[in-house]
Amino acid sequence: MDLNALLTSAGINIGISVALISLYSILRKQPCNLSVYFGRKIASERVRRLDPLCFDRFVPSPSWIVKAWETSEEEIMFIGGMDALVFLRILVFSIRIFSIAAIICLFLVLPVNYYGKEMPHKQIPTASLEVFSIGNVKEGSKWFWAHCLALYVISFSACILLYFEYKSISKMRLGHIIESTPKPSQFTVLVRGIPRLSGKSYSDTLTKFFANYYASSYLSHQMVYRSGTVLKLMSDTEKMIKSGCCGGSVNAFKILSSEETVKENVKEIARFADLGVASRYNECPAAFVFFKTRYAAFIVSQVLQSSNPRLWVTKLAPEKNDLLWSNLCLPYRQLWLRKIAILIAAIVFMFVFLIPVTVVQGLTQLEQLAQALPFLRGFLNKKFINQLVTGYLPSVILMLFLYTVPPTMMLFSTVEGYVSHSGRKKSACLKVLCFNIWNVFFVNVLSGSIINQLNAFSSVRDIPAILARAVPTQASFFMTYVLTSGWASLSCELIQIFPLFCNMVKKFILRIKEDSPNNLTFPYHTEVPRVLVFGLLGFTCSIMAPLILPFLLIYFILGNLVYRNQILHVYESKYDTGGQYWPVVHNATIFSLVLTQIIALGVFGIKRSPVAFGFTIPLVILTLLFNEYCRQRFYPTFKQIAAQVLIEMDRRDEICGRMEEIFQQLHSAYCQFALTSPDSCKAGNINEGDHKIQDPEAINPCVKLET
Amino acid sequence: MDLNALLTSAGINIGISVALISLYSILRKQPCNLSVYFGRKIASERVRRLDPLCFDRFVPSPSWIVKAWETSEEEIMFIGGMDALVFLRILVFSIRIFSIAAIICLFLVLPVNYYGKEMPHKQIPTASLEVFSIGNVKEGSKWFWAHCLALYVISFSACILLYFEYKSISKMRLGHIIESTPKPSQFTVLVRGIPRLSGKSYSDTLTKFFANYYASSYLSHQMVYRSGTVLKLMSDTEKMIKSGCCGGSVNAFKILSSEETVKENVKEIARFADLGVASRYNECPAAFVFFKTRYAAFIVSQVLQSSNPRLWVTKLAPEKNDLLWSNLCLPYRQLWLRKIAILIAAIVFMFVFLIPVTVVQGLTQLEQLAQALPFLRGFLNKKFINQLVTGYLPSVILMLFLYTVPPTMMLFSTVEGYVSHSGRKKSACLKVLCFNIWNVFFVNVLSGSIINQLNAFSSVRDIPAILARAVPTQASFFMTYVLTSGWASLSCELIQIFPLFCNMVKKFILRIKEDSPNNLTFPYHTEVPRVLVFGLLGFTCSIMAPLILPFLLIYFILGNLVYRNQILHVYESKYDTGGQYWPVVHNATIFSLVLTQIIALGVFGIKRSPVAFGFTIPLVILTLLFNEYCRQRFYPTFKQIAAQVLIEMDRRDEICGRMEEIFQQLHSAYCQFALTSPDSCKAGNINEGDHKIQDPEAINPCVKLET
Repeated sequence: MDLNALLTSAGINIGISVALISLYSILRKQPCNLSVYFGRKIASERVRRLDPLCFDRFVPSPSWIVKAWETSEEEIMFIGGMDALVFLRILVFSIRIFSIAAIICLFLVLPVNYYGKEMPHKQIPTASLEVFSIGNVKEGSKWFWAHCLALYVISFSACILLYFEYKSISKMRLGHIIESTPKPSQFTVLVRGIPRLSGKSYSDTLTKFFANYYASSYLSHQMVYRSGTVLKLMSDTEKMIKSGCCGGSVNAFKILSSEETVKENVKEIARFADLGVASRYNECPAAFVFFKTRYAAFIVSQVLQSSNPRLWVTKLAPEKNDLLWSNLCLPYRQLWLRKIAILIAAIVFMFVFLIPVTVVQGLTQLEQLAQALPFLRGFLNKKFINQLVTGYLPSVILMLFLYTVPPTMMLFSTVEGYVSHSGRKKSACLKVLCFNIWNVFFVNVLSGSIINQLNAFSSVRDIPAILARAVPTQASFFMTYVLTSGWASLSCELIQIFPLFCNMVKKFILRIKEDSPNNLTFPYHTEVPRVLVFGLLGFTCSIMAPLILPFLLIYFILGNLVYRNQILHVYESKYDTGGQYWPVVHNATIFSLVLTQIIALGVFGIKRSPVAFGFTIPLVILTLLFNEYCRQRFYPTFKQIAAQVLIEMDRRDEICGRMEEIFQQLHSAYCQFALTSPDSCKAGNINEGDHKIQDPEAINPCVKLET
Repeated sequence: MDLNALLTSAGINIGISVALISLYSILRKQPCNLSVYFGRKIASERVRRLDPLCFDRFVPSPSWIVKAWETSEEEIMFIGGMDALVFLRILVFSIRIFSIAAIICLFLVLPVNYYGKEMPHKQIPTASLEVFSIGNVKEGSKWFWAHCLALYVISFSACILLYFEYKSISKMRLGHIIESTPKPSQFTVLVRGIPRLSGKSYSDTLTKFFANYYASSYLSHQMVYRSGTVLKLMSDTEKMIKSGCCGGSVNAFKILSSEETVKENVKEIARFADLGVASRYNECPAAFVFFKTRYAAFIVSQVLQSSNPRLWVTKLAPEKNDLLWSNLCLPYRQLWLRKIAILIAAIVFMFVFLIPVTVVQGLTQLEQLAQALPFLRGFLNKKFINQLVTGYLPSVILMLFLYTVPPTMMLFSTVEGYVSHSGRKKSACLKVLCFNIWNVFFVNVLSGSIINQLNAFSSVRDIPAILARAVPTQASFFMTYVLTSGWASLSCELIQIFPLFCNMVKKFILRIKEDSPNNLTFPYHTEVPRVLVFGLLGFTCSIMAPLILPFLLIYFILGNLVYRNQILHVYESKYDTGGQYWPVVHNATIFSLVLTQIIALGVFGIKRSPVAFGFTIPLVILTLLFNEYCRQRFYPTFKQIAAQVLIEMDRRDEICGRMEEIFQQLHSAYCQFALTSPDSCKAGNINEGDHKIQDPEAINPCVKLET
């Protein structure tokens, strides 16, 4: 590939992106697409309508870019939550570090690479891209100090930026916790593995245990019921009511069953539960236990309760909206087996995934394709088709296969038994990240080089050299990957192809007029790994093939605008991990840095530059030490909340006299079923239950009360 | 090596061991050796004298064996503490599992090995040992099911035994905690990283913090002082007293300074500390904080106190006797760096250790030795000397070098910054264990085989095959290792050569009559790794070369008796980890099992037995799953104590009305300096301070009060 081709490809992709973005700026102004591009607003405000047909609606405009640019961090935090802010911080961090990298690499490393071999150069536009990579510097050259210096500058800048980001995010997290309105989840502990005592319900056992050991702080509790049995109970009640009140008259029942029967029904169920008649058989060995203070709840969640570690397992409860009810009833004893099984399954998936991709990609070798499908032979012989098939098809196939990965990983995380949406999403994010690093980076690097993939890792000591040989040659692939996959993914994200298509079908084929919000939450499990993998490509290619950096910078800047816009308008924030993604980002960045340094070691070794080699070793050690320091300094605050903070928050609420109000809310905070009866859910959360959520802010009474 | 030679060697070693044991049974009856062989009794009872000169004193007798055999677990627990019991349990476990292994391997595997190749055998006594190893079974033989079956039986028995041991030890640990008399350490939290506020002493800052956040449970505290400055303070006080009371008369002071001055001195220091005149400059940012209940102390120790994780770092305090005062003043911020530095140092030590050993062992190649020291040439040409030098010298040199390892590792653990003797010893134990497994097993296995040591591990996938080739050929070396190093180490342990020698010098050269106890504590950091490495040899050789098993069994049985005797008579138990060694033992045993299975995989692969190979893979997985299960089920109780247990203990003491008494003890429990003044250490622990400990049971007031 020569520079000309690269620039052409860049031009085409820029053209496509600009076109798609302009298309977006038109589409978003159409009232029929309101639910696609303003899902969050519909969900929260319900009423907004755009102005009627006018000329302005069909002219592309950059207004959304201005709006996205101007949005402050406070607004993002308010609208998208802590996680959205952390996600945007990844982009900002990437922009900063790759600006530094671009400056030093384009002005120092690139000339060294270009003039590395004293040979007559072709005209720059037709020069092969390899001329710009480190492969062009001759062996034993004294100019490797430039690469080493650039590596030092990049590593140090990255560490300094990472340090300040970690510091500011943990400070923000703390502030977010301190300033948040009282949430039921802060006072609630999820207890699992309640022991079964003969002749006693789980509820009784639990009451006895907590009233005995935590008499001073225990408030009440809410059992978790098996949803299957409760549904049965509900239908039983329905039948009972049917035969009781309505005396066999089916018609009468049908008329009644609109509003009042449901209420009756529900009261009956509540009465059932109260009487304990049926509950004993429907209770799971899990419950939400409410405490009088945050500190008490936190203490209970941190400490081993019983000398059998698999009984009375406690952890702080997720928020109501964050709960994955279906996993709450899983027996706690199973979880470790599930975790191991899923770990193995994920690893197997990572390797097995290669097989169909390789087979299908092999088919795109034209000869095989022509052999397999002889009738295409004439068609395939055309030059344009030929180029298209060999050039684009492999990466399109890879892309299509890659789209199956996040749902699979999400499924894995569900089976693993997470009890919160946010925890499940974070776990899926980690899995997708590992998968992408393996499949986008390593598999491409190693299959591109001469060495057989599976043999590559049998020899541990040769890995740096293998990577060092492979990465510069694969740099042109990574550049096109950034151009196509990166920029295209942003345009697709903006246009929301799939929801747009669904909306079209609904509006123009099914003729449904009403705008129902689609309740999308931000797909951290696909976007965080995507951005981090581009970061990995940027670091590893920076001193090897600096030409990638400008394209990456454009990706990150555009990404920053696009994701800001999406967070503002499209996605709802129903649940939040409180910034738990940052430690993942930090570790992934350190991994990328160390990998870069190891590859540099390999390159300096191959190119016989002992000085640069020697200077890089302390850099690896310093980077690892820095990581350990951050792990000591910041990570504990992401795992635990400091006692001091919790006690202060409790005191503040006590002084404000808000405690009574909070206790009131607690009773109804974790109602499991969609009850419309105000009797059973006292504090007025009317539309509860997962499948009835329509207004996410109406669910959390605290948000409604105080924001 | 043939069977004859092995049996001769065994005979010689049995002879030596019997002789040494008989010698021991005589030596222990000599009154002059009382302090060597009855150190613990001297320390605790002080008065016992053996009967005067009689004939019986010079006749070997097995009475100590009977006594050791009859000692019950309760006695061991009472005398040696939980750790001693755990250590003996390792031996009992080893006896059990290797009895099973010996039965199945000698009666099933050994005949299969011996008749493996259909070749005319020599007479059994002159047959090479290789005939008895798995190497003798021909490729593709159908008899490998026997080895596979034996492996299954051994693995399953080991897992079942491990499970019940873990269960019973965690139960014992719990019982030990519940039934123990109230200890000050249970109510005390060691706080480090107290922040420095301008114009305030650490003590004031601490009081303010705990009185604010833990008002209901905070009792008092005791600062830690820099010992250097306090020594200076003490000498200053001495001078002051000298110039004050004694008016410049040096002689008068000298007379006075026997008893009374010391008391005065100490009162003065105590007054100094009380007045806070000097204390501000001598305080470390560390303190012991006392709480009203065990539960409160435990909670404080478990929870992150401040949102800066390196301030207010809390953990449960070790017991007074267990404290390593010198490490208490280390700044907490340094510790992570120390840990990393020591980790690197230990790894470097493991590899660098090979160099002198190889060099010196190389010298024992006779030609080089004769060249280096030409005057020895005539001497070395004699056959007996030749055999001695080539046969014994290498292993003697290895042994001598190995003796330097435990002190080095102990030094490493000290530098690492452990604040308790027991924690330091456990950490040293882990280091020595890794070192021994590496140096005794892997280095010998891999240097004995053709493959170069350093290249061996560059190829990950070939490791099973390499080990499979090497282990059977090294089996004869391991057998002689068990005979010499194992049995000899037990005899040496029994005779206590070094203390005996010191005692001889003291009694017969320096002519000191008095028996002072030598205050030895059980060297877990050398003995636990030793026993575990023999276990590793037993597992890995079991199906490869079953002849090793009888020798190992003798070692474990003898070891059980010898160590029981030593715990009863020689070693004191000044401090205790409460059974924390068992998780180490469990993990090491699982490691040995999995290594055995991997080597078996390698052997079955080389010998082309796909069925046996296929059946071994699930065994590896099952073993790892079993380990994970145990980690889930038992390990948490070794890390934390359950809240339930602590609350019950607190209630029991409250009901008994013992709380006041306990609080009284707390005030004086952690006095840092050897004070003889009853004013400053109120509860009557008169002989405090590390260098003055004479009677360990007098130190812990609770033990004295209640046992």
